[in-house]
Amino acid sequence: MARKLVAKRSRKAGKAPGTLMHIGQPRDDLAAIRVIEYDAEGLDDRRIHDAGQYHEPNGGRVAWLNVDGVHQADVIEALGKGFKLHPLVMEDILNTDQRPKVEDYDGYLYLVLRMLRFDEQEQQIHSEQLSLILGQHFVLSLQEHPGDVFDGVRERLRNGRRIRFMQADYLGYALLDAVVDHYFVVLEQLSEHIERLEDELIDNPTPTTLGRIHHFKREMLLLRKSIWPLREVLSRLSRDESPLISAETRLFLRDVYDHTIHVLDTIDTLRELLVGMLDLYLSSTSNRMNQVMKVLTIIATLFMPLTFLAGVYGMNFEHMPELAWPWAYPAVLVLMLMIAIGLLIAFRRRHWL
Amino acid sequence: MARKLVAKRSRKAGKAPGTLMHIGQPRDDLAAIRVIEYDAEGLDDRRIHDAGQYHEPNGGRVAWLNVDGVHQADVIEALGKGFKLHPLVMEDILNTDQRPKVEDYDGYLYLVLRMLRFDEQEQQIHSEQLSLILGQHFVLSLQEHPGDVFDGVRERLRNGRRIRFMQADYLGYALLDAVVDHYFVVLEQLSEHIERLEDELIDNPTPTTLGRIHHFKREMLLLRKSIWPLREVLSRLSRDESPLISAETRLFLRDVYDHTIHVLDTIDTLRELLVGMLDLYLSSTSNRMNQVMKVLTIIATLFMPLTFLAGVYGMNFEHMPELAWPWAYPAVLVLMLMIAIGLLIAFRRRHWL
Amino acid sequence: MARKLVAKRSRKAGKAPGTLMHIGQPRDDLAAIRVIEYDAEGLDDRRIHDAGQYHEPNGGRVAWLNVDGVHQADVIEALGKGFKLHPLVMEDILNTDQRPKVEDYDGYLYLVLRMLRFDEQEQQIHSEQLSLILGQHFVLSLQEHPGDVFDGVRERLRNGRRIRFMQADYLGYALLDAVVDHYFVVLEQLSEHIERLEDELIDNPTPTTLGRIHHFKREMLLLRKSIWPLREVLSRLSRDESPLISAETRLFLRDVYDHTIHVLDTIDTLRELLVGMLDLYLSSTSNRMNQVMKVLTIIATLFMPLTFLAGVYGMNFEHMPELAWPWAYPAVLVLMLMIAIGLLIAFRRRHWL
Amino acid sequence: MARKLVAKRSRKAGKAPGTLMHIGQPRDDLAAIRVIEYDAEGLDDRRIHDAGQYHEPNGGRVAWLNVDGVHQADVIEALGKGFKLHPLVMEDILNTDQRPKVEDYDGYLYLVLRMLRFDEQEQQIHSEQLSLILGQHFVLSLQEHPGDVFDGVRERLRNGRRIRFMQADYLGYALLDAVVDHYFVVLEQLSEHIERLEDELIDNPTPTTLGRIHHFKREMLLLRKSIWPLREVLSRLSRDESPLISAETRLFLRDVYDHTIHVLDTIDTLRELLVGMLDLYLSSTSNRMNQVMKVLTIIATLFMPLTFLAGVYGMNFEHMPELAWPWAYPAVLVLMLMIAIGLLIAFRRRHWL
Amino acid sequence: MARKLVAKRSRKAGKAPGTLMHIGQPRDDLAAIRVIEYDAEGLDDRRIHDAGQYHEPNGGRVAWLNVDGVHQADVIEALGKGFKLHPLVMEDILNTDQRPKVEDYDGYLYLVLRMLRFDEQEQQIHSEQLSLILGQHFVLSLQEHPGDVFDGVRERLRNGRRIRFMQADYLGYALLDAVVDHYFVVLEQLSEHIERLEDELIDNPTPTTLGRIHHFKREMLLLRKSIWPLREVLSRLSRDESPLISAETRLFLRDVYDHTIHVLDTIDTLRELLVGMLDLYLSSTSNRMNQVMKVLTIIATLFMPLTFLAGVYGMNFEHMPELAWPWAYPAVLVLMLMIAIGLLIAFRRRHWL
Repeated sequence: MARKLVAKRSRKAGKAPGTLMHIGQPRDDLAAIRVIEYDAEGLDDRRIHDAGQYHEPNGGRVAWLNVDGVHQADVIEALGKGFKLHPLVMEDILNTDQRPKVEDYDGYLYLVLRMLRFDEQEQQIHSEQLSLILGQHFVLSLQEHPGDVFDGVRERLRNGRRIRFMQADYLGYALLDAVVDHYFVVLEQLSEHIERLEDELIDNPTPTTLGRIHHFKREMLLLRKSIWPLREVLSRLSRDESPLISAETRLFLRDVYDHTIHVLDTIDTLRELLVGMLDLYLSSTSNRMNQVMKVLTIIATLFMPLTFLAGVYGMNFEHMPELAWPWAYPAVLVLMLMIAIGLLIAFRRRHWL
Repeated sequence: MARKLVAKRSRKAGKAPGTLMHIGQPRDDLAAIRVIEYDAEGLDDRRIHDAGQYHEPNGGRVAWLNVDGVHQADVIEALGKGFKLHPLVMEDILNTDQRPKVEDYDGYLYLVLRMLRFDEQEQQIHSEQLSLILGQHFVLSLQEHPGDVFDGVRERLRNGRRIRFMQADYLGYALLDAVVDHYFVVLEQLSEHIERLEDELIDNPTPTTLGRIHHFKREMLLLRKSIWPLREVLSRLSRDESPLISAETRLFLRDVYDHTIHVLDTIDTLRELLVGMLDLYLSSTSNRMNQVMKVLTIIATLFMPLTFLAGVYGMNFEHMPELAWPWAYPAVLVLMLMIAIGLLIAFRRRHWL
Repeated sequence: MARKLVAKRSRKAGKAPGTLMHIGQPRDDLAAIRVIEYDAEGLDDRRIHDAGQYHEPNGGRVAWLNVDGVHQADVIEALGKGFKLHPLVMEDILNTDQRPKVEDYDGYLYLVLRMLRFDEQEQQIHSEQLSLILGQHFVLSLQEHPGDVFDGVRERLRNGRRIRFMQADYLGYALLDAVVDHYFVVLEQLSEHIERLEDELIDNPTPTTLGRIHHFKREMLLLRKSIWPLREVLSRLSRDESPLISAETRLFLRDVYDHTIHVLDTIDTLRELLVGMLDLYLSSTSNRMNQVMKVLTIIATLFMPLTFLAGVYGMNFEHMPELAWPWAYPAVLVLMLMIAIGLLIAFRRRHWL
Repeated sequence: MARKLVAKRSRKAGKAPGTLMHIGQPRDDLAAIRVIEYDAEGLDDRRIHDAGQYHEPNGGRVAWLNVDGVHQADVIEALGKGFKLHPLVMEDILNTDQRPKVEDYDGYLYLVLRMLRFDEQEQQIHSEQLSLILGQHFVLSLQEHPGDVFDGVRERLRNGRRIRFMQADYLGYALLDAVVDHYFVVLEQLSEHIERLEDELIDNPTPTTLGRIHHFKREMLLLRKSIWPLREVLSRLSRDESPLISAETRLFLRDVYDHTIHVLDTIDTLRELLVGMLDLYLSSTSNRMNQVMKVLTIIATLFMPLTFLAGVYGMNFEHMPELAWPWAYPAVLVLMLMIAIGLLIAFRRRHWL
Repeated sequence: MARKLVAKRSRKAGKAPGTLMHIGQPRDDLAAIRVIEYDAEGLDDRRIHDAGQYHEPNGGRVAWLNVDGVHQADVIEALGKGFKLHPLVMEDILNTDQRPKVEDYDGYLYLVLRMLRFDEQEQQIHSEQLSLILGQHFVLSLQEHPGDVFDGVRERLRNGRRIRFMQADYLGYALLDAVVDHYFVVLEQLSEHIERLEDELIDNPTPTTLGRIHHFKREMLLLRKSIWPLREVLSRLSRDESPLISAETRLFLRDVYDHTIHVLDTIDTLRELLVGMLDLYLSSTSNRMNQVMKVLTIIATLFMPLTFLAGVYGMNFEHMPELAWPWAYPAVLVLMLMIAIGLLIAFRRRHWL
């Protein structure tokens, strides 16, 4: 089943704000919650099942709760109560077609991002909503489907690297960075397909080439729509004076911001390239049509006069003196040859041959 | 009758500002006024007929007057006098082709919005002007036609939910939210038609496909024109420090603002998709023309030389020695076959077959 | 004679600034000056011929001088001296191809607008420069040709309506409002023609359809150019704190500003519609070409093989055994029929029939 | 030789900033310096040859040095030393492909402008760099070639008009005004050619029409590039509080600014017109192709079946009973006629005739 | 091997920020470090191999370290430790597909630029990352490949010119200036190719012309992407009040900023020119197709009726009285000639000949 351009939100229209109702692809299994608590000394990694029973760590430890699956409204509600989240935040977590944004609530920041993955099989981008809630000592990350881009972050946490000595804001940055870094991977995969398509276009364009240009143009459209608002989100994060983010982390966020701009630049370049490829396709179609027409015109121009001449001497009039002349037949053949040669010279003069 | 792109305003040109004259589709029936007054304790729902006799509730109750039908200038005038509205506000309520806007008057805010509905029958969007007047303890909503998107709000009011404990500004927000939420419904319907059209375009494009792409491009144009100014309206509402709107409601308005941006993003994506579909249509028309031309050229190139040859031996010269040779006829047939085979090989080399 | 895109300014190049020289269509008759002086008590309406002899009214009356014809530099100069206008203002009044603008001089505001009229005969817009000078107690309006859009304002002045109780700034607003209101009339006329053209395009497009699309695109171009700068003019007027404009009038000016934005929105929508119509035209031309090519190809593919076959049996070889067989003729006819039927089936398979 | 799009700057790459080296078209003759010194009392006009020996006038006179020819680096250097110009200013004077700009140095303003001229012969715009240096009591103007647009200014200086009573800033304004006024002349010439081209396009388009549309599009491109930055230059001049420019002159500069905006508006209108003309050209080409194809198809459809029929009765079978029937020949002729008439009716039904 | 549009960053995704890993084309040889230390008195030029052993000069000398090769992460790390660079800076130096940017760190500025070179052989632009680190008394420049655009700067340093008397900020400016000056060289080369292509397009367009237009459009796309962000970098450098840059150097930086704007303007002009060339190509293809179609139609229209006529008199009916008339044959020939002349006249009337 193809992706929908517009999510099924209609069920929610008319409901009160803060109504908790999942909007997105339904899932059958239970949401999984993984808690990683750490400080410079050590790390504690466990899975919990009831979001309500979780208690914040004491003594300056940082807690990262990763929720895999936002299709169960009651799980989100329990979590939201535990962390005192605003009803609008809980609603946005459940509505999985949000635009990337950052919102400043009392005691925490709420971020929405799109986590992207390029499916080589279907050659299309899968987009998943990632909600990040950044508090003083905790980070909540909520994703729609199993599998994410955070394995590198977990690895660094386990290995006791720099990140273990930092606060929650740095963890939040690390997650953002992992998401944006993966955009480069998606772009790499896309650009490889597009460059292969460009070669195909120049070597041997076929009607399917056209369909594929359209397909990738559409993918770039969705890609841009998913990433564009992030630019403003990161610009605000690295500029605003939120007490939740330290000056040093702000420096790192500026770096993620630069990467996002870079990603957007590359998307625009690829889009313009695809537009150029479409122009090229149309022009080369037009060129080939010209070639075909020339062949047709040459053939018709060559044989129509000759066939006419043969037709004249095929007429059955009784009084056609030429018919009786002994050298008439070879003479007509020579005349035909001269007409053909004359026409071929004319074609060459017009650069048709 | 098709919608008009430009409303009939000419009757009003030259009139004094504040002249009360209805501009829009005429209606025969009377305007209906429905008053809902409520506080945390209870709710009072009634219909009144004479806007002039209405009195504001006392004791902190919130009053919502919904006027269905703005085609009677005298009704609007009576209402305007009761609520001390500026003549320009009354004029704008009657001129039903206003752009969305917000205006800050002494004691109340005046908002204009477009309430949209997608007619599946005619496959086109119906747009209706909604005027909202937000005072300290009252909200006036004025719509053109019966039927609106506020049933969910009424339901919540009756059921004594959160909204009953809030002030008039929250009610205003709830109405705005209901209107914007319905934009998602319209977009969903439109995008389903557009995606079906895209499938049709790839599988079996016909000339009507083209007309329908044009039709939906035009709908998107009108949709965008109706919603675009709302972006600024909501941005101002959620930023400005109007005393009529509490800080908490401002938070909710920011949410509606985000939804509006999301709607506009989606409109732009759909528009670019439609442009891409038009390009695809043109290209595939061009492709099919190429196919047709190739068939024509192959046929002509194959049979014209052969017909010429047959014509030569159909000439009636007396001295054509070949005619008498016993093996001449089969030889000519073999020659014709060889020419045909040679040409077919040449076609295959050019990838025409 | 067609309108010029660029006015003949070259005569003025190299002249000193403030050189009074009329640029525009020449006229033969004399400029007519009409003076309306009024206050709440009464109104005095007269025509004067010598601008120099005019004296400002005393006692708080408001004076409106309407000058019809700016082709006589000496009239403008006399007027300018009487009202102490800056030389640049007088120059701009005479150069009738100014862009709309507002300039703040000592003691008065100088506004330039375009007064538009749609000529149904020639189906094109006529644009005329209107200069407004707004002082404390007077308004000067200078137009190029007889006939304007101010009859409604004069009517309201005569009838002693609200406007009679207001100051000169309100009169200025009323004139601005009349001009902008008339833009809606022009747009209405244009949009009716464009919608009729759209119907024609879908029902029965002809080459003249194309010329008319181009014509209206050009009109929209000129319309936009004439109105676009007014947006900034009105924005400044309704924001700036000029002592010549009262807070209340500013409110009314905001309304005119909204109308201007609305006009510009509609112009953009119509322009995009015209672009879409051009695309549609091109696509349908392409479609019809495809139809024509298919007919040609079907005919050629059908008859060329058959004619060839007939040609073969028209050859005059002595040794063609088939010619003598009694059933050869009907057999060939049947063969021909079968070839024809086979080809028709092939065409239907390709959806060409 | 055609103009170059990009000037030969490569010789200078890698040189120190402030290196004085002429970049532009070489000239053989000597640079000519003309000095006009004036005050309200009188005027002194002379030519000097050695820029170094020039001394500033005393007693409040204003001096205008016009240098015709910037190809001699030593002349510019001597002048620069005399007036204490920054090395970067001298460098910019010599590099004649600068963008228009204004720079604020200690004691003087440095302006770069493009002086344009439309060559009716070659139908292209010639662009020349004009450097203006505006000091307290002097103006330096440096142009590349003999001949400028300042004759009107010189005339007014000689005749003792208003300009003689003003300071150097007013002279600077007068020169700017003369340059911008001449842009209108260039636009007038261009627009006349473009309108003539438009008539040609509608009446009788030829392939050269296309080349000329492209040519004028290119000219508009260069024109816009030359004038666009001036907008910002003049905006800054009329807003900034430089002590070198009096409040009154600032008023006049605002006027030049308005003219520049007007010029740019007109350029954009002409460009859009040219784009529309290209579309029209393409569409009419497509239309004519359609006409040609219809003629071909009608002819082929008419004669191919008839020729086939004639071919059938030209076959030489011995047993063709029809051949012997006395009325067969006229019957076949009538049949042919009926086929032809039937086809013509079918063509008319399809609106092909 | 063709350039990649998107660099291979995927290896780095998921790594910690500040991970030092080279991203770019691999090299085998060692990085070379060249140190130039100078003051007004003298200059010291040497090559070092171990970045770690370098010590800053004392006594107010300026040091310029040019590193040729950033493919060895350990070299960059050693250098970074010596100059106390932030880990993010070291990471950005190694990731050679950065966007141009400037970042303000404690004690130094970090700049990224693209150093461009046009390869005349492959007719494409080679882009290389240049990192500049500007401290109080030192400048680090790090480039990817041997060979740069700084020979002019080295020359001026050796010759004891002005630059020797200035501080490190002026050296930084001189390097920036050299890079931007070389953009003009690249543009000159590109524009020469493009103008040659334009001549070819008008004189004798071939299908390869189309491919080359596409190629140069793509090059302009990459060029613009490489230079566009520099505009903001230089604008910030010349405006911001960084203590590392003196007021005088700021003046020079403003000059580089102007050059960058000029480069970008020219890129845009060339891009629009290329778009215009593509339109021209398509139109001329369309024109030539029209010509071909006309020839075909003329030939077919001329010979089809004549061949039909010949076919009629080639029929073998026994009762065709015309066949026996003595003057029938010449009469038919004359009839044929008259038909041909009539058709030729009709063609001329339609301007087809």
